[in-house]
Amino acid sequence: MGRRVRVRAPATVSNLNCGFDVLGFALNEPYDIVEVELTRSRSVEIEAITGCETLSTDPGKNVVGAVLTALSSAAGRESGFRVRIEKGIKPGSGIGSSAASSAAAALAGNLLLDNIFSVSELVRFAMAGERLASGTAHADNVAPALYGGITLVRSYEPLDIVQLHVPGALFCVIIHPEMEIRTSVARSLLDPHVPLATAVRQWGNVGGLVAGFYREDYNLISRSLEDFVAEPKRAALIPGFRELKESAIKSGALGAGISGSGPSVFALCRGAAAAGAVLKSMQEVMMTAGLEFKAYLSPVSLRGAETC
Amino acid sequence: MGRRVRVRAPATVSNLNCGFDVLGFALNEPYDIVEVELTRSRSVEIEAITGCETLSTDPGKNVVGAVLTALSSAAGRESGFRVRIEKGIKPGSGIGSSAASSAAAALAGNLLLDNIFSVSELVRFAMAGERLASGTAHADNVAPALYGGITLVRSYEPLDIVQLHVPGALFCVIIHPEMEIRTSVARSLLDPHVPLATAVRQWGNVGGLVAGFYREDYNLISRSLEDFVAEPKRAALIPGFRELKESAIKSGALGAGISGSGPSVFALCRGAAAAGAVLKSMQEVMMTAGLEFKAYLSPVSLRGAETC
Repeated sequence: MGRRVRVRAPATVSNLNCGFDVLGFALNEPYDIVEVELTRSRSVEIEAITGCETLSTDPGKNVVGAVLTALSSAAGRESGFRVRIEKGIKPGSGIGSSAASSAAAALAGNLLLDNIFSVSELVRFAMAGERLASGTAHADNVAPALYGGITLVRSYEPLDIVQLHVPGALFCVIIHPEMEIRTSVARSLLDPHVPLATAVRQWGNVGGLVAGFYREDYNLISRSLEDFVAEPKRAALIPGFRELKESAIKSGALGAGISGSGPSVFALCRGAAAAGAVLKSMQEVMMTAGLEFKAYLSPVSLRGAETC
Repeated sequence: MGRRVRVRAPATVSNLNCGFDVLGFALNEPYDIVEVELTRSRSVEIEAITGCETLSTDPGKNVVGAVLTALSSAAGRESGFRVRIEKGIKPGSGIGSSAASSAAAALAGNLLLDNIFSVSELVRFAMAGERLASGTAHADNVAPALYGGITLVRSYEPLDIVQLHVPGALFCVIIHPEMEIRTSVARSLLDPHVPLATAVRQWGNVGGLVAGFYREDYNLISRSLEDFVAEPKRAALIPGFRELKESAIKSGALGAGISGSGPSVFALCRGAAAAGAVLKSMQEVMMTAGLEFKAYLSPVSLRGAETC
């Protein structure tokens, strides 16, 4: 049996209201585990996927296959990989399911290839997984899934990821309604152009949010959590979104919004106790409406992908 | 003779490439001085303006008149003001000439009215001057002119000004070509809509720039000083702009761009020595091209409007 590593990568929240396509952060849970074993087959073999019945074990159709193929090709190695995937994050949930598997695969593959790539290079390989999953090579989930904490994709060309300061008391509540939204559908709802005045409001808030993180100014963070670009178009996709958001803010959340392209809804909170109250109020909204859902409460986590 | 105060307010650079309409910072020089005396006339009288022959002494047509009228009306006082203005900043230069006079007038008036307004309220009164000068009530020059340092206009409604951290070694070179660009003309060149992908690049850079200020990461500041919105449209208004910018960056500037709506060109530098080299190279571009100009070198200043 060849060398083997087991890597855990967390769910992530991207967009953060104003930070469409550029901001994201890592959660403690849920997470995916990818176990990779070095083989002499020169190919990627996905032996098993647990926790999800809809994903393909064909390496050409699975993000893990795409990432490991890109990685070994760039490394110029003739080795192959045998893979087992434990999905803790449901695909299509809006909390970085494909990004977590991609990030875990990139880190695992790199460890087996003697760590020849830097973490910032791994972001590029993990983006190959995102391209397969959604048609576009986004970095706003894979970056926090690899680095942990809060990340900013300052630029795609060249790729420039900035790790931002994480205030200590930042907690996140996730409500994941039992439905799926395809990223491509959520994206098709957006106008290809933004009024200049709207764009100015959005980047004023991005500046305020980043300053709020560094100053640990929760009031400024709260004021900056506005989205004038994606949320107005996408909110209607998620049954109960307005009620969930209102309820979260009424119970003390700093802000709330659509996680990624949804359907998960996130609420940022100051402190675990506040997050507990927000979780309870959001759960009640879902139960009153008779909607099926999963819920998570997690600190904004400094831990990215890591062996386990 | 009534009580009298004399207030100095600095020139300011707004936009900072990516931070169109939201970011600005204060210089040490040039500056305007506004001297205000309390009278019993119930009106504003502009006794004299030195340093500029084109500005009106009609209080209805001068930003200082507009600001003081708004201020005393909001205060519910029946007092009047007699004013002397010393213009150190040329109107239409793009480095906040009307903002400096407006900020100085707001602070002076407030001092004479027993400081009843907060600095953030003074921003609103100074914006009345900006409305008279340019047709729009911008805050991105009056905010740094009043507070000093680097400011972010996170939001206009409600008005929310954030004072950002100022890295200690940040210096600025200004080249002011001897020509005037009307803000309204510069604004008419902008597309009323921005492609979403362009807006995302712009707010990625706003996030990077704010993080760079807090981390005192001059490399990140440098990478973030890009403008995909205003500069591509406005650069052609300023003879020699491309050469000035290239020369500044070649001589070590972190970045360069159009100050406000121009024609002044600014370059941000790390340290006074670097700024000196950048100043020299930009002066040479202007002299070689046979263009008339003024030049300034100043730290990004923590000092806003103050009595003198």
